[in-house]
Amino acid sequence: MAVEFKAGLKDVVAVNSSITAVDGDQGLLSYRGYDIRDLATQATYEEVVYLLWYGELPTQPQLREISRELAAARPLPQPVLASMRTYPKRAHPLEALRTAVSIVGMHDPDAASNKREATLRKATRLTAQIPVMVGAWQRLREGQEPVAPLVDGSAAENFLYTVTGRRSTPVAARTMDMIFILHADHEINASTFAMRVAVATFTDLHSAITAAIGTLKGPRHGGANEDVLEMLLEIGDPSRAARYIEERWEARSRMTKEERAKPENRIPGWGHPVYKVDDPRAGVLREMARKLVSETGNTKVFDIAVRVFETMHRVSDLPVNVDFFSAVVYHALGIPIDLCTSIFAAARISGWSAHAMEQYNDKLLRPRAHYTGPPPRQFVPVSQRS
Amino acid sequence: MAVEFKAGLKDVVAVNSSITAVDGDQGLLSYRGYDIRDLATQATYEEVVYLLWYGELPTQPQLREISRELAAARPLPQPVLASMRTYPKRAHPLEALRTAVSIVGMHDPDAASNKREATLRKATRLTAQIPVMVGAWQRLREGQEPVAPLVDGSAAENFLYTVTGRRSTPVAARTMDMIFILHADHEINASTFAMRVAVATFTDLHSAITAAIGTLKGPRHGGANEDVLEMLLEIGDPSRAARYIEERWEARSRMTKEERAKPENRIPGWGHPVYKVDDPRAGVLREMARKLVSETGNTKVFDIAVRVFETMHRVSDLPVNVDFFSAVVYHALGIPIDLCTSIFAAARISGWSAHAMEQYNDKLLRPRAHYTGPPPRQFVPVSQRS
Repeated sequence: MAVEFKAGLKDVVAVNSSITAVDGDQGLLSYRGYDIRDLATQATYEEVVYLLWYGELPTQPQLREISRELAAARPLPQPVLASMRTYPKRAHPLEALRTAVSIVGMHDPDAASNKREATLRKATRLTAQIPVMVGAWQRLREGQEPVAPLVDGSAAENFLYTVTGRRSTPVAARTMDMIFILHADHEINASTFAMRVAVATFTDLHSAITAAIGTLKGPRHGGANEDVLEMLLEIGDPSRAARYIEERWEARSRMTKEERAKPENRIPGWGHPVYKVDDPRAGVLREMARKLVSETGNTKVFDIAVRVFETMHRVSDLPVNVDFFSAVVYHALGIPIDLCTSIFAAARISGWSAHAMEQYNDKLLRPRAHYTGPPPRQFVPVSQRS
Repeated sequence: MAVEFKAGLKDVVAVNSSITAVDGDQGLLSYRGYDIRDLATQATYEEVVYLLWYGELPTQPQLREISRELAAARPLPQPVLASMRTYPKRAHPLEALRTAVSIVGMHDPDAASNKREATLRKATRLTAQIPVMVGAWQRLREGQEPVAPLVDGSAAENFLYTVTGRRSTPVAARTMDMIFILHADHEINASTFAMRVAVATFTDLHSAITAAIGTLKGPRHGGANEDVLEMLLEIGDPSRAARYIEERWEARSRMTKEERAKPENRIPGWGHPVYKVDDPRAGVLREMARKLVSETGNTKVFDIAVRVFETMHRVSDLPVNVDFFSAVVYHALGIPIDLCTSIFAAARISGWSAHAMEQYNDKLLRPRAHYTGPPPRQFVPVSQRS
């Protein structure tokens, strides 16, 4: 009954998609045909959201309209904030976000409709509110009062504002805007794929986004972001980077394949299921990180990262991935380690929404398992079991 | 880069699994080698939970131990009940459940560990508490106070108790126990598959189960359960069943393939992505429904279902699926229509947990999309777009 088994569905085509193209051999990434490097350096995140949802870059009136809609949708509904106030302060930001999205779904006037217009309205609200939820949780868990989002400004600027309670510098705001663009979509990685499996049952958008957030949390996926910064801080000084990496890599070479696959034995920020060469986003992020730290003068973590980068390229043939220099950028912006993956979610909600709209017109995703358990056997009542 | 594209991943083997075997051609279903019909008629749900998690049926001491652990874990933590009290009363029970599971995850002492022992403890708590959450929400939304679960009795008995506030009859309790056994697992259907995609990133069990619940909600998946009862009640009388089905089926035959695929144009309870012949669970459920209604004397919905069953087998070659006679059983037990899929979740949590434990030892699930969008194109700044 079944076609060839590919462990982990590696290289199996699960869906057709017109949103994002990834060329892992050449290190190319594009949204709707536009190279990610052009979008990151020349567009704004709001333009990219429009592009992902409607397939074309917006005209000026279209851009004004979507920016206005997103800004208007930013304030969190009262029940969401009330609920967030009750979460244990030690909760991981993605646990808080997963729950807040589940809560807001119960209050969404379009919750029960999967028509395209309803899904667009829900996507607008979620894309506007998820960054605000992340900011609100950051403040709540530190015992501070959440701040209401600005009535103006970009999504990225508002995200920084809701975290810090202050208007950010133009450089910080533009950096965060680029981060949002770079993280807006990436074909059907695990969180998007889990979300598409959910949507394919015709479940509602909030259920699907809750699934995506829960999936993103895994350390083999978005969670790797946070591990990078922990590693760089553990290294502590650029002079120790080469030796640290050489030793870890050497230790890895003595492990079995199974041991190497364990998250704790990987070098976070390196290797990718699709890219065979460096992730095209990493170059943009490295340049952003360089600019940011040259402004502040606090270059240590960036310098450690550059040494790790050089050493990894010397000792291994693994490509660098998007998480590596993202972590350095987040650190330079003063963002706490365990908030990094939530920023990923705050930007990726736009891509998840685009994939949901596409999947609502597609088939149920229902592969098979190959059964490897015991053969048919006779039932024995409990009184006769030994 | 990619192997053959199979729309919807139909017949593609995504994982190896030793839990459940489905033979769609012969209409066979077994857990760990035991035929579902033997388990439903001779085992208890607690035995099946043990079987799914440990691979073997329990001895008497092992059964006592797991029953004791499940019973002890039943009372809902206070923050979960407090949160549920704030949900809008019109929320779908699966929205309430999705949120309650997300909340309880933030309070679970093992939330951050994916070690097998920690996952087993979390699975025990979730398997014990999800039926109680479903019961609590049913009472809360009707303006009644939730009742604390019993300190004794089976999971199924406790589920009925937390819905009704009364001890159930032995026939009702045994019926619900069989319902729980029949719904405990079903290979990698959409909710289990979404959950395995989540787990494959090494995310935590609560995130993965939240994803599963959100996926189960889709009308192409668990939600179909509820559509069956709506259809039977709409038919209203056994004498109208044949004509109703003949007309709907005739109308379908005049539709395009795309129109026929829409949920509103399907006959709920019929057709299955895997079974080519009648689902083996349907026969057990039909017999359960017959017994239940012969006790109460209220046979109308059962009689309608039998006529629909006969007519569908006459006019179509679709197999009946698990949802069809489940709906009749739920109706006979006095369970509200929109609670049906939550019962599915209340039982399936045991199978989801077994699949999670298996997937924690497996690879990332990361297929590819085939890109069908625009070719590479030049970025044009917004001021120059028309």
